[in-house]
Amino acid sequence: MQTAQRRERKQNKPSIYPYDEWRVVEDSFDVETNYRDETIFATGNGYIGYRGNFEEGYQGPVGTSLQGTYLNGFYESHPIQYGESAYGYAKNAQTMLNVTDSKIINVFVQGEQFSLFEGKLLKYQRVLDFRTGIMHREMTWESPAGNRVEIHVQRMVCLERKHLAAFSYEVTPVNFSGEITLVSALNGQVQNQVTLGDPRVGSAFHGQVLTTEDVVQDGSLAAIRQRTQNSRFTLVCAMENAIETGNQYHLEVGTKEQMASAEYTVDALEGVPVRLHKWVAYYTSKDYDEHELVQLARAEVAEARELGYDKLTAEQRDFLYEYWKHTDIQIEGDPALQQSLRFNAFHLLQSVGRDGKTNIAAKGVTGEGYEGHYFWDTETYIFPFFLYTHPDISRKLLEYRYTTLDKARMRAKELAHKGALYAWRTIDGEETSPYFPAGTAAYHINADIMYALKKYLHATNDTEFLLKYGAEMLFETARFWVDMGAYIPKHENQFCINEVTGPDEYTALVNNNLYTNVMAKDHLEFAFETARWMKENHSQVFTRLAEKLNLQDSETTDWQSAADKMYVAFDEEYGIYPQDDSFLQKEVWDFENTPEDHYPLLLHYHPLVIYRYQVLKQADVMLAMFLQGNRFTTAEKKRNYHYYEALTTHDSSLSPCIYSILSAEIGEVNQAYGYFMRTARMDLDDYNGNVKDGIHSASMAGAWLSIVQGFAGMREYGGKLMFRPVIPEQWRQYQFKVSFAGRLLRVSVTPKDTTYALESGDTLTLYHEGAPIDVSTGKPVTVSTEPKLEAVLFDLDGVITDTAEYHYLAWKQLADELKIDFDRKINERLKGVGRLDSLNIILENSTLQLSEDEKKALANRKNEYYQSLIEKITPDDVLPGILNLLKDLQERNIKIGLASASKNAVLVVEKLGIGEYLDTIVDAAALQKGKPDPEIFLTAADELHVPYRNCIGIEDARSGVESIQGAGMKAVGVGTPSAMDIADWAVQDTSELSVTKLLQWI
Amino acid sequence: MQTAQRRERKQNKPSIYPYDEWRVVEDSFDVETNYRDETIFATGNGYIGYRGNFEEGYQGPVGTSLQGTYLNGFYESHPIQYGESAYGYAKNAQTMLNVTDSKIINVFVQGEQFSLFEGKLLKYQRVLDFRTGIMHREMTWESPAGNRVEIHVQRMVCLERKHLAAFSYEVTPVNFSGEITLVSALNGQVQNQVTLGDPRVGSAFHGQVLTTEDVVQDGSLAAIRQRTQNSRFTLVCAMENAIETGNQYHLEVGTKEQMASAEYTVDALEGVPVRLHKWVAYYTSKDYDEHELVQLARAEVAEARELGYDKLTAEQRDFLYEYWKHTDIQIEGDPALQQSLRFNAFHLLQSVGRDGKTNIAAKGVTGEGYEGHYFWDTETYIFPFFLYTHPDISRKLLEYRYTTLDKARMRAKELAHKGALYAWRTIDGEETSPYFPAGTAAYHINADIMYALKKYLHATNDTEFLLKYGAEMLFETARFWVDMGAYIPKHENQFCINEVTGPDEYTALVNNNLYTNVMAKDHLEFAFETARWMKENHSQVFTRLAEKLNLQDSETTDWQSAADKMYVAFDEEYGIYPQDDSFLQKEVWDFENTPEDHYPLLLHYHPLVIYRYQVLKQADVMLAMFLQGNRFTTAEKKRNYHYYEALTTHDSSLSPCIYSILSAEIGEVNQAYGYFMRTARMDLDDYNGNVKDGIHSASMAGAWLSIVQGFAGMREYGGKLMFRPVIPEQWRQYQFKVSFAGRLLRVSVTPKDTTYALESGDTLTLYHEGAPIDVSTGKPVTVSTEPKLEAVLFDLDGVITDTAEYHYLAWKQLADELKIDFDRKINERLKGVGRLDSLNIILENSTLQLSEDEKKALANRKNEYYQSLIEKITPDDVLPGILNLLKDLQERNIKIGLASASKNAVLVVEKLGIGEYLDTIVDAAALQKGKPDPEIFLTAADELHVPYRNCIGIEDARSGVESIQGAGMKAVGVGTPSAMDIADWAVQDTSELSVTKLLQWI
Repeated sequence: MQTAQRRERKQNKPSIYPYDEWRVVEDSFDVETNYRDETIFATGNGYIGYRGNFEEGYQGPVGTSLQGTYLNGFYESHPIQYGESAYGYAKNAQTMLNVTDSKIINVFVQGEQFSLFEGKLLKYQRVLDFRTGIMHREMTWESPAGNRVEIHVQRMVCLERKHLAAFSYEVTPVNFSGEITLVSALNGQVQNQVTLGDPRVGSAFHGQVLTTEDVVQDGSLAAIRQRTQNSRFTLVCAMENAIETGNQYHLEVGTKEQMASAEYTVDALEGVPVRLHKWVAYYTSKDYDEHELVQLARAEVAEARELGYDKLTAEQRDFLYEYWKHTDIQIEGDPALQQSLRFNAFHLLQSVGRDGKTNIAAKGVTGEGYEGHYFWDTETYIFPFFLYTHPDISRKLLEYRYTTLDKARMRAKELAHKGALYAWRTIDGEETSPYFPAGTAAYHINADIMYALKKYLHATNDTEFLLKYGAEMLFETARFWVDMGAYIPKHENQFCINEVTGPDEYTALVNNNLYTNVMAKDHLEFAFETARWMKENHSQVFTRLAEKLNLQDSETTDWQSAADKMYVAFDEEYGIYPQDDSFLQKEVWDFENTPEDHYPLLLHYHPLVIYRYQVLKQADVMLAMFLQGNRFTTAEKKRNYHYYEALTTHDSSLSPCIYSILSAEIGEVNQAYGYFMRTARMDLDDYNGNVKDGIHSASMAGAWLSIVQGFAGMREYGGKLMFRPVIPEQWRQYQFKVSFAGRLLRVSVTPKDTTYALESGDTLTLYHEGAPIDVSTGKPVTVSTEPKLEAVLFDLDGVITDTAEYHYLAWKQLADELKIDFDRKINERLKGVGRLDSLNIILENSTLQLSEDEKKALANRKNEYYQSLIEKITPDDVLPGILNLLKDLQERNIKIGLASASKNAVLVVEKLGIGEYLDTIVDAAALQKGKPDPEIFLTAADELHVPYRNCIGIEDARSGVESIQGAGMKAVGVGTPSAMDIADWAVQDTSELSVTKLLQWI
Repeated sequence: MQTAQRRERKQNKPSIYPYDEWRVVEDSFDVETNYRDETIFATGNGYIGYRGNFEEGYQGPVGTSLQGTYLNGFYESHPIQYGESAYGYAKNAQTMLNVTDSKIINVFVQGEQFSLFEGKLLKYQRVLDFRTGIMHREMTWESPAGNRVEIHVQRMVCLERKHLAAFSYEVTPVNFSGEITLVSALNGQVQNQVTLGDPRVGSAFHGQVLTTEDVVQDGSLAAIRQRTQNSRFTLVCAMENAIETGNQYHLEVGTKEQMASAEYTVDALEGVPVRLHKWVAYYTSKDYDEHELVQLARAEVAEARELGYDKLTAEQRDFLYEYWKHTDIQIEGDPALQQSLRFNAFHLLQSVGRDGKTNIAAKGVTGEGYEGHYFWDTETYIFPFFLYTHPDISRKLLEYRYTTLDKARMRAKELAHKGALYAWRTIDGEETSPYFPAGTAAYHINADIMYALKKYLHATNDTEFLLKYGAEMLFETARFWVDMGAYIPKHENQFCINEVTGPDEYTALVNNNLYTNVMAKDHLEFAFETARWMKENHSQVFTRLAEKLNLQDSETTDWQSAADKMYVAFDEEYGIYPQDDSFLQKEVWDFENTPEDHYPLLLHYHPLVIYRYQVLKQADVMLAMFLQGNRFTTAEKKRNYHYYEALTTHDSSLSPCIYSILSAEIGEVNQAYGYFMRTARMDLDDYNGNVKDGIHSASMAGAWLSIVQGFAGMREYGGKLMFRPVIPEQWRQYQFKVSFAGRLLRVSVTPKDTTYALESGDTLTLYHEGAPIDVSTGKPVTVSTEPKLEAVLFDLDGVITDTAEYHYLAWKQLADELKIDFDRKINERLKGVGRLDSLNIILENSTLQLSEDEKKALANRKNEYYQSLIEKITPDDVLPGILNLLKDLQERNIKIGLASASKNAVLVVEKLGIGEYLDTIVDAAALQKGKPDPEIFLTAADELHVPYRNCIGIEDARSGVESIQGAGMKAVGVGTPSAMDIADWAVQDTSELSVTKLLQWI
């Protein structure tokens, strides 16, 4: 039924940066890419963010640069304008402000101002270094008058000091001695970018928003105090400067309107560098009493000057050394990738708020896209990265959510619900999403945050956090579900969650979004279990909390009831989980007739048009199957993947990484690699063409997820850490580290094996492909992942025995009774065909008009005949060679499974007397789909706890061979030419099968 | 399953206007109600609209008045602000402007300015007269200094002259002689009301919008020219004045800023009136070249002065005489109602644009609610009123839609669709709805307009309009459906229309809204039929149009295919049509715990909350059942009515009239009357508390609909005009007129009969309760509607024969075979119970575990036994007295129907030999619901073409009696006490039944 093709998008423009493992390097200046490069070369410490602007200012064409400085969490608000408003709409927008520009250092060479657009640029290099944490530039410039200087600039935003940034600006006359002037300044006259048309950039303010209240100059030290109007924040930016020169110099300081500057004029000598150091501090009333701000900022820069520039660089380097020790992923065989992974991890560090009062914005602190807002991106994409590399940071992210709990309670109340509902997009916790169908309706945010909390607890055992903050958030959000959902009679009184929007924003306002329901179920179970555990282990804390929340005893059991009865629809026909109640009743998007330049769809089609079709912006059901992987079988993942993947545009940057992870999990490693590369280099290659507006922090973390949770298959359920590593053929090795429960684990994967090494902490039991492994420090464990035969899965009919004759006889008897012609030739058409369909084939030769009920009755009658016939089966009916094969396999401890679609399999096995050899018989009645769907073979392997690649399946029907291969196993085809044609190996007769051959083959 | 209660809303404040059949009269001035009264006393001619403001200005508190003058279709536009915009959103808002205030006539009495808030108001009366079309005021005022004057003001907006309004202002000194000054003015300094918070009022402009370009004064004549910025219209308002006094006077003219005035100072004598006449004209560049406007306006007022004031009043009276001749509805026994019906019809005339370029705004030209926009209200509610009273006006409304067809084409293109999509709300045709889920998503607007076109053609045979305008609109809108809908595999490849919002705006963005699908089906059939008819009868016109539209031959057949395969869901369990695919899967709104002051819900709950529940703002399925009444049976109407009525808040003023109509149709006349009264006096009683923002034009028309289509049951299908009159017990008679196909028909309904009189035109065949009647001029036809026995409907089992014994024996045989205890006592429980449920009762005594299929098989087996047993039935098995009764009924031409739920009824009738007596046997297998649902008896009556009230049903089971009574028939209960208890009459035995008794009873 699907006509849609998976669409491969071309990347925008190939990267201009040479591959360098620890740096991004730009060797020439390009106006065309400058706007984007400003994002790439941005520096930050999770609080202060500088775009990669030039200290000397920018004289290029309008629209090729955004001079930006941001403070995480520092915003102005303003009332949202609605064409048509309604009750409960989000009232205020919040915009992260472009704050006081403190990057300014202007250079005059013998009176001529340095500019990239005048004179000659003889050399240019800009470097962002992930190990030093410094952005530096080297330039050789010849002024229009012919005076040549070498310039070397360093900039760092101090990772150890939230409020501090530092600059080193060095100018060396090359072909002259003369006057060099360096003007270091603060400029309060700043405003946000005005971008219209693209909903992802957001409508910002027009004109200046910050009111400048005071400009102070005190020698080389200066400060500007500014204020916001609506959010009522005060901001102070201070600078200190120091000139380093052997020559004479003159300092002139001054304030002008909203500017403060320190102008150093130096009598410079040819070949002798002049160096200016500049320290900048930002303090706001979000953190401190507003009267202390000036003092704090001044003290900060004074202290920094005292300390000296080099101390700060050393501190920065040390900090990053520790960071990389826990964070670095190494890939052998792919330098482009290696670079981007470090680039991503570095920017994530630069973006993440670590003070417990801020979070991580969609664009970090590198640009104005999405207005500096925090989304579910944090918990769903970025949180795991920090949790498994720097759990202390991940705690801070959860602490932030706790600070906004009161606002979440208020929001729930506005919506006439109990409990708390977290804001879909926000800075300070208030809902600011002006389009509720893709804002407030994304109720899953509550479950997403609580999922992160659960993972955090499993990975850290930080019960102190749970008792102090976590439980309160958990209970308030759980009661929200119970209040907003309902037991719906038309869905057998299952618990339904109606009128929501799931992760896929190309579908909105639906009932029972699969992701939402499954996540809510997990959330409610977690809440119930936590309440139970607290009552047992921390009853006083629980009682106090219950009193505070007015939490009734019945509520906690309501959580469990709702979870138990959570409605999860399943479509029998397709064998998949519908994304929501109505999804499969929609038309499939016409991908074939959608021009390439009409992506992303949201910029070319009205929401009503997009909502009307089966088309996904991003992973939805698949995201549920990743996060809640233990609730779904591999067969389900495969089947749903194939359905939804074909419908997904990946118009959201949050999509490819999830598809990469799932591709890896279902064994499509090449596909996983493709999706991973889109994720990993999304920003460096500017895949979506909007890096200028800021980095994609979630996608950056998604690259980490794709490796650790994708290729290495790391999962954590119930505190157990599990891996199922695969490796793309492009790589020789990959290696990463995981912090878990106080341990630091190193995992290395090669095409042949996986090594687990514990770098610190107590012995850890982890699970490799389902099997437990104990790892201790100094005792790495290497597990081979080379294929070996661990299990053989047999079809029954035509492989172990031949019941075909009995089927023929049973049908023959029925046909005779109905007076329908039926012979062995017609019988051939029945092979591999289900019971009712077989009957329909037979009825082709009849004029009988039968109802479905009557047909069922006839099919049952045939089965009764068949069952009487197979009563006669004896051990002699086992086909030649099979009994020996079973015995040999058993002797070698190779497991044996029976994967037969026949509902009479158990009876036949009993009659054949081979039950003792079989380690498992799959219950065909419990399957969602028959062959050629791989479910039956996957199930057999799962029941035997054997990796699929270590199984061989033996089949006589083509659909059976397809089923085996679909399961990622090797197939032996027996006897039937159509099956033998596509099988990995073929035999004419079962007597040709032997253990030796099977071992040889694999 | 329903816990919801129908909620009766209290009216806001009882009407202060005394009941007066032809006028609204206000005898005292009340600041509290002034804002509202300004709407009530508004005057207009479908183009110019004056709120009922005082000529002397208003000095009352802020918020108690809106000085307003409007021109239908004259607006300013401005870009809509979206917090988060998206592709294809409506770009511009349009707001009907408050234009140049020309009402001003200030009065000074010996230098003291008249004001309602100073001095003493000794007498006050304000009157709106529906026959003269004049709003007049009588006042006696004593100035603070003690000078007393009588004031008499008249105002009219000329119904015959689009651009003209006229005033007569008379002042008579009562207790003094002295100076009276009258200042007549135009004021260009006007602005729209700023109302925030209520989405229904709409966000208007802040401050003055019209730019005043010129103020001209030329003696007593003056003009102001103004301009809009974005819509680029020019407006000229001119005035002429004339004083009428025997005394000396002095005229001083002048312009000041944006004002022009003529000041008459008169030396008035005690007892001698001073009278000022004023004529005002409005001309805009929407109608004429902007350079001609001043000249046109001046000429208009000059001509009016020439003509004299009295000629204009005579013209006005004549116009209204003709209007009422076609329009007036007379009610005997309800003066309050009589007043409101005329009030409504008068305001509808004042509101309707009759120039083919304008339409009728939701609030007419009386206020700023909904910004002067046109909605589907026109075609669905207001159009029928004009169609059946003044078809020439209804044509103008359709012409307006044609003028916006190009904009509708553009809108379709923006939405990536073929054809045309009319704007949900607009003035000039451009979509201006800023909230698409209750705007663009209401795609049904296309079908609504085309439905009006169809009705227009049936009522006028105006093929010229069809060929010139109608077909083009019809084809373009039809191709839109085919493009946006789809054949959906999961709905058996039926044609589905997904992602729409139906009339009920408390549910949004759903699939297969019943109303939308049924209306679209009708629309597509109409388009196909029209294309076929044109090809046959006007092939050249068709070919030209097809070329213009690039219409392929296959497209017209696509219309028919989509109509044929239109998906209309039916819920077997409830026996109703779900409002949409997901409606019944939602929770029912908790009406019981919703405080009275939380209505309308939209002002107290977030849309997400409202959308999540089964709760209706207004009629939806029921509206489909009204408009497409011939596609639904009475049984369906009853069942759906009872389901949806309980869920409807009537938060929309469009709701009660539809429920009134349906209530009348299903025989709930009291209920119909209640809903009707809410509709009829909605504005006079200010039921929703927002009359201040303007009249509710749709609801006003709804009152007319409620009488003509509700109580009188008028329907038109396929050109046939039908009536099914009922009359509320409160009335002695009601009478109305209908223009149809060139005739003028008068219909009078009393409790006893209905009279059809043709006032003009050729003989008309109409249908009274399904029976054709020919009416010619001078030959009125009176049809009795008093109950008389026309049909007797028999249950079979227990009434005509007793097959109960055979059922018992058949069950007994089955039970014995299954070895289950079964006796006559248990058998009693099976009476009136279906086959499968009976089996379940029997199985209570068994431990057998049976599948549904197996149960079906057993039930079939029992039926086989039963069928063999009833083979033995003979005519002797007819119960005593029945045969005679059947014979007697047949002799008296009283029809006989068999309403038996038994699927073996035909066989039993045959065996009994009574087939010859039966005029119909209902096919029980074709029914949606069994007894006690009334469907079976309703079906029998329908098949016999007998009104329900003229049927008697005879039943032996309680559920059967309930079924009869639910059908609005009288029931005879036979034998069984539980049935006899609730029956209208009861007999112990069939032998007691006789024709005489039945005739007596009825």
